[in-house]
Amino acid sequence: MAQLPSIPKGTRDYAPDIMVKRNYIFDTIKSVFKKYGYMPLETPAMENLSTLMGKYGEEGDKLLFKILNSGDYLNRASEEYLSEKNSVKLTNQISEKGLRYDLTVPFARFVVQHQNEITLPFKRYQIQPVWRADRPQKGRYREFYQCDVDVCGSNSLLNEVELIQMVDEVYRRLKINVRLLINNRKVLAGIAEVIGEPEKLVDITVAIDKMDKIGLEAVNAELKEKGLSEDSISKLQPILNLSGNNDEKLEKLKSVLAESEVGMKGIEELTTVFDYLKPLELPLDIKLDLTLARGLSYYTGAIFEVKALDVEIGSITGGGRYDDLTGIFGLKNVSGVGISFGADRIFDVMNQLELFPKDGSTITQILFVNFGHTEEMHCMKLLQKLRNSGINAELYPETGAKMKKQMGYADKKAIPFVALVGEAEISNGTIAVKNMESGEQTNITITELIEKLK
Amino acid sequence: MAQLPSIPKGTRDYAPDIMVKRNYIFDTIKSVFKKYGYMPLETPAMENLSTLMGKYGEEGDKLLFKILNSGDYLNRASEEYLSEKNSVKLTNQISEKGLRYDLTVPFARFVVQHQNEITLPFKRYQIQPVWRADRPQKGRYREFYQCDVDVCGSNSLLNEVELIQMVDEVYRRLKINVRLLINNRKVLAGIAEVIGEPEKLVDITVAIDKMDKIGLEAVNAELKEKGLSEDSISKLQPILNLSGNNDEKLEKLKSVLAESEVGMKGIEELTTVFDYLKPLELPLDIKLDLTLARGLSYYTGAIFEVKALDVEIGSITGGGRYDDLTGIFGLKNVSGVGISFGADRIFDVMNQLELFPKDGSTITQILFVNFGHTEEMHCMKLLQKLRNSGINAELYPETGAKMKKQMGYADKKAIPFVALVGEAEISNGTIAVKNMESGEQTNITITELIEKLK
Repeated sequence: MAQLPSIPKGTRDYAPDIMVKRNYIFDTIKSVFKKYGYMPLETPAMENLSTLMGKYGEEGDKLLFKILNSGDYLNRASEEYLSEKNSVKLTNQISEKGLRYDLTVPFARFVVQHQNEITLPFKRYQIQPVWRADRPQKGRYREFYQCDVDVCGSNSLLNEVELIQMVDEVYRRLKINVRLLINNRKVLAGIAEVIGEPEKLVDITVAIDKMDKIGLEAVNAELKEKGLSEDSISKLQPILNLSGNNDEKLEKLKSVLAESEVGMKGIEELTTVFDYLKPLELPLDIKLDLTLARGLSYYTGAIFEVKALDVEIGSITGGGRYDDLTGIFGLKNVSGVGISFGADRIFDVMNQLELFPKDGSTITQILFVNFGHTEEMHCMKLLQKLRNSGINAELYPETGAKMKKQMGYADKKAIPFVALVGEAEISNGTIAVKNMESGEQTNITITELIEKLK
Repeated sequence: MAQLPSIPKGTRDYAPDIMVKRNYIFDTIKSVFKKYGYMPLETPAMENLSTLMGKYGEEGDKLLFKILNSGDYLNRASEEYLSEKNSVKLTNQISEKGLRYDLTVPFARFVVQHQNEITLPFKRYQIQPVWRADRPQKGRYREFYQCDVDVCGSNSLLNEVELIQMVDEVYRRLKINVRLLINNRKVLAGIAEVIGEPEKLVDITVAIDKMDKIGLEAVNAELKEKGLSEDSISKLQPILNLSGNNDEKLEKLKSVLAESEVGMKGIEELTTVFDYLKPLELPLDIKLDLTLARGLSYYTGAIFEVKALDVEIGSITGGGRYDDLTGIFGLKNVSGVGISFGADRIFDVMNQLELFPKDGSTITQILFVNFGHTEEMHCMKLLQKLRNSGINAELYPETGAKMKKQMGYADKKAIPFVALVGEAEISNGTIAVKNMESGEQTNITITELIEKLK
């Protein structure tokens, strides 16, 4: 036989058993989003390159998948670039569209483009694939789904509270034990200010963001390398070592940051969020973590990260507030706050901990064995009754196929029950129902079967 | 302000109100697919060009969106093609991936690639976007969703019956009045044979496929133009004018096609399908239509098309059996049969006939007006109770925002109820609930509200 066909590296087929599990995750998350009034949005896979370029840094531009213009695309290409084989410069002449790299830039683009049609605050969720021309490696793909929920056009910290409530509900329903880490970029800015290195904010956040991974000593070494004075680094130590519960930490921070206006604003925001949360008595473990910085991103207020407690894996959800979501497209003063659920990692956690519901990789509840033409005609009427009662059921389609083949089909598809309806059952109006796990077999009526499966 | 950002021509944003309606369609269709044991499958947006090229004809190859290779893609490009500006030949050197053009080729590719892991018959549905570099025009897009359901690896005509049952159930649930047209390619082959033009099968099917649009005379003219003899054309007339119910038509056809083996096989297949269907007593209007040919496609057995009866629009669902689904990838003897639901057209039909459920463009059932800090703290506890009962509810996030703004938000988002909880309501433990359509307002308890909205 010829070589098997394949798919581009870094991409995946989602086979049915995987899809059913993924849908379980997405359906759970979506139902929570809807409970809080978030509406679905979808944007095209292709965006104009003018929309995408320059939004993800120089490295990001390189990782965009670019689409070749249709037709005679070389027609107007510059002879100079062609003869030079200048890939970088030629790209602009032969490609004007790219695949979306994330869901945030398309969201911002949508809000600006449709600013006269939408009402603020605008609450949307979006679950779609994104594409990045990264080198594929374990756990890193070139096509993967993002699952974002954001609200824009509202400065209220109630939005932050709502996002935390949603995190609580999603993970309770998925039965994953998690801890939510919270911090505030203004507090980080305040820290940089009071240790006397305000212009080193980015270096400081990048370094302390690594606390979890590389530890205090390595972080201090990195800060020194970045040019922070011994004095600044030593001033930073009590902050990195801050202990106690959230209230105690905030209390201590207040005195440390007393001289920084932005820092005090950050503390006020955190305090407000905690004050909203207290009476709600969420079971969620929420921890103020000053070493949480979320890299070099565009956040300006609250930042969040969610960690699974029973599996060693990076954060499974993250997000925060960004004060100038739509400024890149010319619309000022629209603040946004949102979080992104990491579907692939949530899948891995649930798989590892066996948290998917037991019937979580199948769809069909019962398979009717096909014994022959008379039997299949009889079974089709029974199937009609089952389906009218909302039960997912199949008849093996090949008339009188070998029993072994039919049972193998049920087994492979993880169908929990098999119905055997032969001459005897037809004449006495029953169905022999076999439990595929226990092997147990009982004769019941169609009414009893519907009752059993509902 | 700068110019508004835009999206590539032929693509669309699906705004929340549209998404809710689209999801209503997809959710209905999916739940029917599941009832019959079809499992979800998703494949990557990008396929290798070797998978896609040559599968859709020469015209199709041109309509594939091709993805520029990453990095220094010109490095190994031929100087000759560059200096010639030979777009066609250069493409193979600078692009090795393309966006999928339909869901059938990726399905066939999946089945062949994973032939050792899947069990036949393999029943899958797939709802994903496809991309075609067509010239955009009204109703034709460069990105659109296909919604396919297919089974492969089973020759049983029970599969055809099942697909018809699904069509019946989908459109009954969507409340669209439809007629299902059915024909069989073998019958068409038989017709070509008995009129003495077996090698003109394609011309004949293409011409008679147009009966609906251009009428009998124009079809005859086209057949003449294609080189059919007067004799052949006159032999074809009784077939084109066949009248009566399905059984009567089949009976007449039997005598017309008596000399054609393939034709009689087609009649036998149609008869078997009708025999299976009769005892099921589906409400669906099913009509044998010999002028149904479904163009130049690869079908070899049954062919289907569904037309909406109350709106002038092309077919909203179509499909059929293709005997050699996976042969293009080297796996012989795997027959497939399936249908594709046209999501865009179904959407248009439902919109035009106002068939979407009344609350079909919203998600939130009730909005709590935000009167100020005390009130919002009180409302958040009430919201917890509503959401715990599965009710989608929102609190306007801006503390004490103007009433007009908040009501406008509810209005724009089509939220059916607004809750007003001020000082008086807090003290007497009630909620003033306003019906946004009737304007009616009642004071009720949270328990009563939950009862009302459930």
